[in-house]
Amino acid sequence: MKAYVEMSKEELMKEKEELMKKYKEYQDLNLSLDMSRGKPGNEQLDISLDMLGIINDKESMKCEQGIDIRNYGVLDGLNEAKELIGAMVECPPENVIVYGNSSLNIMYDTISRSYTHGVMGSTPWCKLDKVKFLCPVPGYDRHFAITEHFGIEMIEVPMTENGPDMDMVEELVSKDDSIKGIWCVPKYSNPQGVSYSDETVIRFANLKPAAQDFRIYWDNAYAIHHLYEDKQDKLLNIVEECEKAGNPHMVYIFCSTSKVTFPGSGIAGLAASTENLKYIRKQMTIQTIGHDKINQLRHIKYFKNIDGMIAHMKKHAEIIRPRFETVMDALENELVPLGIISYIKPNGGYFISVDTLEGCAKRTVGLCKEAGVVMTGAGATYPYGNDKKDTNIRIAPTYPSVEELKLASDIFVLCVKIASVEKLLNA
Amino acid sequence: MKAYVEMSKEELMKEKEELMKKYKEYQDLNLSLDMSRGKPGNEQLDISLDMLGIINDKESMKCEQGIDIRNYGVLDGLNEAKELIGAMVECPPENVIVYGNSSLNIMYDTISRSYTHGVMGSTPWCKLDKVKFLCPVPGYDRHFAITEHFGIEMIEVPMTENGPDMDMVEELVSKDDSIKGIWCVPKYSNPQGVSYSDETVIRFANLKPAAQDFRIYWDNAYAIHHLYEDKQDKLLNIVEECEKAGNPHMVYIFCSTSKVTFPGSGIAGLAASTENLKYIRKQMTIQTIGHDKINQLRHIKYFKNIDGMIAHMKKHAEIIRPRFETVMDALENELVPLGIISYIKPNGGYFISVDTLEGCAKRTVGLCKEAGVVMTGAGATYPYGNDKKDTNIRIAPTYPSVEELKLASDIFVLCVKIASVEKLLNA
Repeated sequence: MKAYVEMSKEELMKEKEELMKKYKEYQDLNLSLDMSRGKPGNEQLDISLDMLGIINDKESMKCEQGIDIRNYGVLDGLNEAKELIGAMVECPPENVIVYGNSSLNIMYDTISRSYTHGVMGSTPWCKLDKVKFLCPVPGYDRHFAITEHFGIEMIEVPMTENGPDMDMVEELVSKDDSIKGIWCVPKYSNPQGVSYSDETVIRFANLKPAAQDFRIYWDNAYAIHHLYEDKQDKLLNIVEECEKAGNPHMVYIFCSTSKVTFPGSGIAGLAASTENLKYIRKQMTIQTIGHDKINQLRHIKYFKNIDGMIAHMKKHAEIIRPRFETVMDALENELVPLGIISYIKPNGGYFISVDTLEGCAKRTVGLCKEAGVVMTGAGATYPYGNDKKDTNIRIAPTYPSVEELKLASDIFVLCVKIASVEKLLNA
Repeated sequence: MKAYVEMSKEELMKEKEELMKKYKEYQDLNLSLDMSRGKPGNEQLDISLDMLGIINDKESMKCEQGIDIRNYGVLDGLNEAKELIGAMVECPPENVIVYGNSSLNIMYDTISRSYTHGVMGSTPWCKLDKVKFLCPVPGYDRHFAITEHFGIEMIEVPMTENGPDMDMVEELVSKDDSIKGIWCVPKYSNPQGVSYSDETVIRFANLKPAAQDFRIYWDNAYAIHHLYEDKQDKLLNIVEECEKAGNPHMVYIFCSTSKVTFPGSGIAGLAASTENLKYIRKQMTIQTIGHDKINQLRHIKYFKNIDGMIAHMKKHAEIIRPRFETVMDALENELVPLGIISYIKPNGGYFISVDTLEGCAKRTVGLCKEAGVVMTGAGATYPYGNDKKDTNIRIAPTYPSVEELKLASDIFVLCVKIASVEKLLNA
């Protein structure tokens, strides 16, 4: 295959003609495919079904603490649930609070609480003139949506294959005390599937922020979400590194079982230093009497411990690996040789992130849509939905079947080619 | 029996001596009884057990909308869940949002959202110098805790047997635009068990608040929680009355199944006008991807409809009625004739509220504690925990067994007598 940049105008025009012919053929099929949603497919949902019936009589209603879990009480989670969530993110159970069904909700709450009541006694953010957050890009749109909702100014930090650009992070947080946090998905990041290197984690732990209430918002959403048995990314323990660095209070860790058991019916947790949790519990006593303990016990009885959960994750991997590979094969065989995309092969997580030639992402997504393939909106991976170079596209390969994905990948590949040829012709 | 106020000093001293002798006998029993907690007893928890196993295979996973409820999606609740929650509070399903496991959490969220983002476009409360709430007293301590947490000034409004003193409510809200809300438990109120009269509801609906963002926080926690078949309080529909009065946006209604199925593992909802819900959903899209739909469907399949739920509530009534009557009999036979308490007999709800002679509540609760009976702290039913006259005590009769309640009531009665005699002797 000849790289597009090496093609003459004539070659490009000929290529375009052929591509458009194929594109019309796809359009005529009136397809309806979707690679936009980072949600488990039906097969994945089936493997957790047995959890639902596991608590169904009086005898199963006691937890380790001897409490009847059907009744009120236990503000911050059952001990066994703290152990399970703690093990997912390698934190001791006493540093974990177990919440309801959604880590997104915990992150919202955490920002909202900081906005209304400050962080460990600091000035509430609503009383400050300016609050800023660092946002590694490309990143997770729902993170950006929360900070935008609270009027927090977002500063982009480029991602590298080792994590965020740490020179820039260090420089910014040490100089500007209005910077109160940074959003991180440190393992199998959304959308690139990048895991932060040891050096990156250590540099995070050793930050010297100007703001005392600066926190690292460590959304460890894909902590155990590996694709392969033999290629698993390892993430250094940020809590231990923060302690070593004398910054024990600088990190909040978020995680959930949404993509382990059931999205929307899992359990979620927050891990942080004892001092952080003290302040958070103070708010929680006002906010709730406690989260769903029956659902916590369901998870505990079903998995028994982290080993049970890891074994369970292998079943997920077997289901989603062929899907990831279908998309990656198409990218590798059809686009990489043409020199019109760059992407990183993820070893886990829920997404594949593609960077097109500059100015081609929106056009590609638009072309896909017109051919019946819904993609995540271009720009979604940037704060304010604004990908200035217009290059990044997030692909979510888990929900469709392998057959659907083959077809959708073919169409996606075709659309990237068309957008690239158009761009080069107009250059 | 001779009323205490009619007794001579000598008679009172003799009475005290006898009471103290009995009190010592109880103390020697080293009891550990609890009438402090408004939570269902174990028998009540057992009657909902069958709900837990009701969803356990793939076939039960579809809702009316045809959605697989195990996956992400459905921000504001399944249609059938909206119908069920709507029927509990007599609102159309389209005016209902179904949340997670706790109406308290919805109320917290509602205040927090108003604080950070205002109400239907109004100025966020955090940007105002002063925000005030009206608090009918005695009332629910967790309501007061939320408003206190957000630095909202609380103004007491006395309860009558028809609801809050509406002359005072009308006067205050029409004059002061910093008054943004009023906490109400309109049916079988916490703690008195009072249901608001038709006139009260109509006057609420016709309020002319100075603040555009004034809302009635209508916590209909005990909407279907009757004690009797033949004596059931009726509550006028506030939504309809507000519409008639041209105030459709003035009320938020909260409710949950915490005391229908399982505390902590029920479902909760908010009902309000379409315009209110539009703003609330806007925030919800940032806050969550959706609440636990599997648990919603559990409730739907178990109850089928509101009739199923009402039939279920009769089972609860049969269990708790003898408990309420045990306490009320003791009050009626032992304290009322002495002229040292006043109380209202509730027809539903979870509490009995007793008013002692002035200055006797704390002493009574203290005496109870020393004799092994835990009561809700005196003052808890007032904002800032401050019952200036020190008269109100909340009794929660649902959790202990009837035998335990008999003993606990005897001790409570004795302690009220001792505190009253002491007070009269010191007068």
